[in-house]
Amino acid sequence: MQLALDLGGVFVFGLSGALVGVRNRLDVLGILMLAGLTGLGGGVVRDVLIGSVPPANLADWRYLLVPALAGLVAFRFHPRLSRIERYINWFDALGLGLFCVTGAAKALQFGLNPVAAALLGMLTAVGGGILRDVVAGRTPLVIRNDEVYALAALAGACVVVVAWETGWYAPWVAVAGAGVCIALRLLAIRYSWRVPRAQSPD
Amino acid sequence: MQLALDLGGVFVFGLSGALVGVRNRLDVLGILMLAGLTGLGGGVVRDVLIGSVPPANLADWRYLLVPALAGLVAFRFHPRLSRIERYINWFDALGLGLFCVTGAAKALQFGLNPVAAALLGMLTAVGGGILRDVVAGRTPLVIRNDEVYALAALAGACVVVVAWETGWYAPWVAVAGAGVCIALRLLAIRYSWRVPRAQSPD
Amino acid sequence: MQLALDLGGVFVFGLSGALVGVRNRLDVLGILMLAGLTGLGGGVVRDVLIGSVPPANLADWRYLLVPALAGLVAFRFHPRLSRIERYINWFDALGLGLFCVTGAAKALQFGLNPVAAALLGMLTAVGGGILRDVVAGRTPLVIRNDEVYALAALAGACVVVVAWETGWYAPWVAVAGAGVCIALRLLAIRYSWRVPRAQSPD
Repeated sequence: MQLALDLGGVFVFGLSGALVGVRNRLDVLGILMLAGLTGLGGGVVRDVLIGSVPPANLADWRYLLVPALAGLVAFRFHPRLSRIERYINWFDALGLGLFCVTGAAKALQFGLNPVAAALLGMLTAVGGGILRDVVAGRTPLVIRNDEVYALAALAGACVVVVAWETGWYAPWVAVAGAGVCIALRLLAIRYSWRVPRAQSPD
Repeated sequence: MQLALDLGGVFVFGLSGALVGVRNRLDVLGILMLAGLTGLGGGVVRDVLIGSVPPANLADWRYLLVPALAGLVAFRFHPRLSRIERYINWFDALGLGLFCVTGAAKALQFGLNPVAAALLGMLTAVGGGILRDVVAGRTPLVIRNDEVYALAALAGACVVVVAWETGWYAPWVAVAGAGVCIALRLLAIRYSWRVPRAQSPD
Repeated sequence: MQLALDLGGVFVFGLSGALVGVRNRLDVLGILMLAGLTGLGGGVVRDVLIGSVPPANLADWRYLLVPALAGLVAFRFHPRLSRIERYINWFDALGLGLFCVTGAAKALQFGLNPVAAALLGMLTAVGGGILRDVVAGRTPLVIRNDEVYALAALAGACVVVVAWETGWYAPWVAVAGAGVCIALRLLAIRYSWRVPRAQSPD
């Protein structure tokens, strides 16, 4: 169950990376590389930082096949994918919710302090997208725009961290944390919530 | 004392990252992320490379709060910060001096050879700025311009490495190394010293 | 012999990084940094991912001097280097072939699964160039264009992986894998083979 959801998150993030590759007219191998970087990058960075190497994402070959599949689907069916972009937003929110709680929980298991665990949960969720954009040569979307995206991931991670520190952690807490993140993300899209920007310096 | 100086360096570098975020009109979370990346990135990369994981920067929550504070200060007071940009240059030189000696010393403690230790000292000092610029979507300043910046950090790191290898290492050597770096940096700003560029190929 | 070939690969990749620095009119330290990043980056990323830290590239000072030498050669002789750019393509193919087999073999020694080992072999070969381009502020060449480059490295790595998994691995297999990669790369240049791009979305 956990594995299936996790692979689902990798698939959706892989799709988003592959679609950036399609838009930049990369060749098929470049698209696969962007799909892998986006789907697996966040988890790999987290595992390197907490000292869990080789990263679980690389040590299990199923994690490597899923973004390849996502890349091939995007390469072959991309006109249809852009028509279903709205659904991609939903899947992306799902991936965000899953990754922020699994990232925070793994950091806590490896003994990191609560602040670091919350940040690593957020980083697991948004790190793949940052790598995707840096390698694709554009300012990372999560940093550039003011949508409630990293903030939703941080909120979901905080649910896990608070429950862990107060001794309430249980599988349903992870589900609740993911739910908080997903709900926050979808509500923010629906109602166009924004994170305040700095005033333009003049 | 060491901790206070180190946190001071993180704060100053965090400010420089946050100001780049303010200039790019990022939202407040993006500014905090750039502040953290700039203040902590160099040390995190060094620790990952020498195998000291989780990085000391993440394992101690005080290191995580300082760039958050720097980010909030920049977000709130940025018009005043740009008025004091000259002082920021001084603080930045201080951070550079502190990080190059602590970076080199830690690499030597972990058994790296002198050449690698000097390079890792330099990387600790300039790495956060490189990550800041890459994520903010511009060519890293330290590479793009020809100021005496990475060179000053390398000189400070070399002081530590030479003293270590000749058996003279002591706390005052670290202070001396930082002093060499800071003096070189400030003199270079004052007298516009430049590192030679390659001639334009034609 | 292995060491000499490996250092040769570092030198050639270092040259390619340094030439990008020369073209961007960096100062001499920036050129050295790009040379080091390009020559050593792929191996460093591989070693961090498989948990072999400090990376072999940093732990042995000879690996650090070679890109410095490449950087100085490029800085001093770059007009002549651009005249011999064709030969650089040959040397680059040599570096690609060497790095993809040593990368895959090291990943297998550290117990990674075959799929991950093949990918890490490819990453070792192309990772330095990706880092070079990201830091130099351009979309990585290996992703942007549709030449047979990463694909050649992947093919060479697969030779090693298949031989390892079937119990046939021997030094000559590594040579054969490098040969497959080099031949594929040079034939692709000679006959302008291309990897298919995604159709432009409309």
